[in-house]
Amino acid sequence: MSAPTFDAAMLNWGRLILDGLPFADVREAETREAGETWLDFWTAKADQYESMAEQALAAGHTVSGGEWLWLASLCCQYAQFLWFDERRKGVQRRKASLYARAAPHLRPPARPFSVSVGLVDVPCFLRLPEHAADEPVACAILLGGLESTKEESYAFENLLLDRGIATCTFDGPGQGELLEKVALSPDFERYTSAVLDRLIENDAIDPARVGVVGRSLGGCYALRSASTDERLKACISWGGFVTVDWNAEPAHDRASWRYVSKVTTDEEARARVEKSLDTRPVLGQLRCPTYFLHGALDEVPLGQIDVLREFAVNADLTVIVEPHGDHCCHNLGPAPRLRMADWLAERLS
Amino acid sequence: MSAPTFDAAMLNWGRLILDGLPFADVREAETREAGETWLDFWTAKADQYESMAEQALAAGHTVSGGEWLWLASLCCQYAQFLWFDERRKGVQRRKASLYARAAPHLRPPARPFSVSVGLVDVPCFLRLPEHAADEPVACAILLGGLESTKEESYAFENLLLDRGIATCTFDGPGQGELLEKVALSPDFERYTSAVLDRLIENDAIDPARVGVVGRSLGGCYALRSASTDERLKACISWGGFVTVDWNAEPAHDRASWRYVSKVTTDEEARARVEKSLDTRPVLGQLRCPTYFLHGALDEVPLGQIDVLREFAVNADLTVIVEPHGDHCCHNLGPAPRLRMADWLAERLS
Repeated sequence: MSAPTFDAAMLNWGRLILDGLPFADVREAETREAGETWLDFWTAKADQYESMAEQALAAGHTVSGGEWLWLASLCCQYAQFLWFDERRKGVQRRKASLYARAAPHLRPPARPFSVSVGLVDVPCFLRLPEHAADEPVACAILLGGLESTKEESYAFENLLLDRGIATCTFDGPGQGELLEKVALSPDFERYTSAVLDRLIENDAIDPARVGVVGRSLGGCYALRSASTDERLKACISWGGFVTVDWNAEPAHDRASWRYVSKVTTDEEARARVEKSLDTRPVLGQLRCPTYFLHGALDEVPLGQIDVLREFAVNADLTVIVEPHGDHCCHNLGPAPRLRMADWLAERLS
Repeated sequence: MSAPTFDAAMLNWGRLILDGLPFADVREAETREAGETWLDFWTAKADQYESMAEQALAAGHTVSGGEWLWLASLCCQYAQFLWFDERRKGVQRRKASLYARAAPHLRPPARPFSVSVGLVDVPCFLRLPEHAADEPVACAILLGGLESTKEESYAFENLLLDRGIATCTFDGPGQGELLEKVALSPDFERYTSAVLDRLIENDAIDPARVGVVGRSLGGCYALRSASTDERLKACISWGGFVTVDWNAEPAHDRASWRYVSKVTTDEEARARVEKSLDTRPVLGQLRCPTYFLHGALDEVPLGQIDVLREFAVNADLTVIVEPHGDHCCHNLGPAPRLRMADWLAERLS
């Protein structure tokens, strides 16, 4: 497997656009001047959107203000994406700060809360459907992957909210705000369960109708979480996997694994990744309905489905393989996302 | 001014994507096989979305069902766009039918009604904000342009609805369902006023807070309508104009003017267009706040702004010229649209 160029790895147009970046910006990024780095381009876009947000808010246009702050945050997400020099930490912090400012203006708003796991506070957001009746609603806990964080899933959250499902996002080990304190670790599911403990204390949420959705590496964490916490009633592994074959990892992903593992050598990263992400030992405990979406053109090998079937022997599996889909089927447009949202709504109804 | 190629005229990526076509489909259209026509490509996409809608609705997934039917309708809109053989009428009818089926499932739903103007029934849709309080809401009447119809503005309607403004769309002379009965005519504003008569009978709508928004040729109609009906309290002319310079019209637009005028020669079309669209005589009566958005790269000449200023001497004009904007500033992403929505919300608040 050959490593993609830096820009090719960034310019997964389907991902950028479906996650919410305007097409005009993505096209501009592609045709920017040769001397302008990816980080500089998207940081400048974030500046622009932040300034537009401030103008909109000053004029009382809160809907647009929230939208621009969220877009500024998303620009920071992609500015620092697969970027490994000393500037990354600042852009990551700015992303979190911009999203926190957007949060009260989003429709529905994202409400911040935090949960303690050991000695660390895990930052979370909860969004409740606007039309929530008097009765408690279903809820999905969304798990980001490698290089993704709680600020990134706004567009997919909206699909779930449209279907009456509340959404909860957080940064786990190796992700976003938590990375400064906690590196990639073999107990991600402990964080999911701690968040779930808190969610089911909320009267607005029906404790019997909580599911978990994870994308890419988050799809691995979703399998781990649903296997080890039977309170999770449905699981979606969106472009996920059961194990990682280090030898098949491209160079930019290896750099990313080192970064989130907070180690400097491939050997250390490999050891940590292989220890943290082997989900086979717990899959026998997976008993809830589980949806596994895979694109046949994904660099994640199709053979992961065989591993899933071999170990998840007690789960009701729905396995979808899209023959023309890339990683997470980002290239196929909105259809796979709407189908996941519908599947989850049905399971949690 | 050189005429764009057929595909270049179609593939205004900004327009297609901001109006709601998935990026994946637009890219597929661009790279389709040489033998596949534009009409065939988008008709096949409509088939696919219609079939997905039927599956979703059969499974009780009404949100997705509505979304797919609307997308199927939008695919038909672009299938028949600038297409002049005998198949066009069938695809236009199918577009209207698919949208009508989507309408009850949209969020908020689009409610059909009709208004009589002379001997014809004008088909309309009304969407009310979901969070309408007990008090009546503001409303925007949206006017399509040449080659556009009441089914096309869903994405922009959502921006207004997010800001608490109801939206009303209809097909006027030369447009969509009405074209079979009424060609382009010099009294478009009579249709706007007839629709307004009906809207203000609706208790949900505040008769003192109705505005009009028109895009491209619709931006010309918006100026005419707001000039001649003082019940309209705000006007947006989005990529609009005051007069048409026939000599500057590219070949595909001339074909379109012939089509909507129901004539066969350029001479007849020119006479009809020049008679129907000269808005100068009424602009002196324009007294409501009016927003005029123009892209400096538009083939519509910048000089239209001078004409507007010369004749609309009694209006409070906000003229925005985007130096890098194309026709209707579709290439600039969502920003110009959000700004128009905010401006209108402020004027109708």
